[in-house]
Amino acid sequence: MVEKRNQRIGVFDSGLGGLFTLRALARDLPMYDYVYVGDTKRVPYGNRSPKTVYEFTRQAVEYLFLQKKCKLVIVACNTASALALRRLQREFLPNHFPDRRLLGVLVPLAEAIQERGSRRVGVLATQSTTESHAIQREIVKRIARVAVFERAAPLLVPIIESGELQLARDALAFYLKPLIQKNTDCLALGCTHYPIFKRTIKSMVGPDVAVVSQDEFLGAKLADYLKRHPDVEQSLSRGRRRIICLTDKTPEFEKRAKEWFGKSMPLKFISF
Amino acid sequence: MVEKRNQRIGVFDSGLGGLFTLRALARDLPMYDYVYVGDTKRVPYGNRSPKTVYEFTRQAVEYLFLQKKCKLVIVACNTASALALRRLQREFLPNHFPDRRLLGVLVPLAEAIQERGSRRVGVLATQSTTESHAIQREIVKRIARVAVFERAAPLLVPIIESGELQLARDALAFYLKPLIQKNTDCLALGCTHYPIFKRTIKSMVGPDVAVVSQDEFLGAKLADYLKRHPDVEQSLSRGRRRIICLTDKTPEFEKRAKEWFGKSMPLKFISF
Repeated sequence: MVEKRNQRIGVFDSGLGGLFTLRALARDLPMYDYVYVGDTKRVPYGNRSPKTVYEFTRQAVEYLFLQKKCKLVIVACNTASALALRRLQREFLPNHFPDRRLLGVLVPLAEAIQERGSRRVGVLATQSTTESHAIQREIVKRIARVAVFERAAPLLVPIIESGELQLARDALAFYLKPLIQKNTDCLALGCTHYPIFKRTIKSMVGPDVAVVSQDEFLGAKLADYLKRHPDVEQSLSRGRRRIICLTDKTPEFEKRAKEWFGKSMPLKFISF
Repeated sequence: MVEKRNQRIGVFDSGLGGLFTLRALARDLPMYDYVYVGDTKRVPYGNRSPKTVYEFTRQAVEYLFLQKKCKLVIVACNTASALALRRLQREFLPNHFPDRRLLGVLVPLAEAIQERGSRRVGVLATQSTTESHAIQREIVKRIARVAVFERAAPLLVPIIESGELQLARDALAFYLKPLIQKNTDCLALGCTHYPIFKRTIKSMVGPDVAVVSQDEFLGAKLADYLKRHPDVEQSLSRGRRRIICLTDKTPEFEKRAKEWFGKSMPLKFISF
């Protein structure tokens, strides 16, 4: 039996940063229907324990599968990809949603670094992501004799979510300094929020360091995945609809959405 | 019937900052038993909606009343005091816990400002607290012809909870500048976390601006309250015990507790 084309692509993030991922996916693969869930009620995840990040992520993924009819969910949040994805793929999906798919963003990131032929890689990410060493692990798996330098940047997400970008320059200089000193040839941005700083970061690390940013390749990676999994592709509805769901109506949301995307966004408030 | 002396004082905060409040209370009134609850799983509250802050605070207060036998709970979190306290006092307590008491930290703050005879007051607080204007309201109620200037400082809590105090100076200068320009005679610190910056803030605002910090007077205010409510005082146990409960074992907790209090703290992880 051929499954009907009636299922969506879910994109999950801890807060608003994943909207950059959604925008990149919808730009490269505009024909599908997307549902975004941002857990603004409990953002940020980057300083929480693995147990808590797993619990929050499982709730969001379950919501996207059950309530939003998603065939495929992309965990856009790097912290959740680092701390929760494997266990969800190995334990939760096989037992509860064997016909659904769950993808993270760390493998595409490591592949993009591998494709560049990098040998000295700096990684900027949240506290919990760097402490898990999950990005380092994915890189080391793919590149022989690579040196990976991870740097936790716990304030960047709060700076972005608060909108006080005036304070970002000092914070970025502080976080990037030790990575620059390591003579890295590439800098991986290991958090959905960081693309907003791409231009500033590029000017700080200089022209010899390639800045690897997920928004630039996740669309191509997803297209590639769907080509290799026609059963998944054939179940996806093609209505060009985007639904944005948040768990809390924070004072900042409307401002941020306008600043980042030049317009206010229609959205729903949900709980799970 | 005289109630037995077997009930505790609860102290609630969104995260770790309320430990300063606990320390101040336990210093001034050491004989009682205290239970601290910090919602590290969902900190910070300062950028969340009133609805969400109410829901989180209600859960914590209920936990302290039911599970920890608290006669009296002090909402040390200014955001929760601003956004949730009144409704809890008017709706939740009368219906569910008519024999318990719930106190916030904004009235003592406004009283302390009144006692100083201030006429031009700067207030530094979280985004949600300033947007509620709850501190301003309490001040205006007590002081005739007072000018109150509120300033949201959304990054200070993340800076403190992350421990990256190197980045605090620039952020403080940025937040304090407009308040200094208003020629205030007093600066109220409207967040449990801010006492950690007291010395820096004092040097920035200069000797003519009095810095009003809750850790300095909450003990005296609580002593005064207990004097005026002997029924509450007589129900409190006097075992000099302190229990610290957190909702998530965040990577930072042990480090912060050592930095701030010079020792690691025995603690329990709870959920509600």
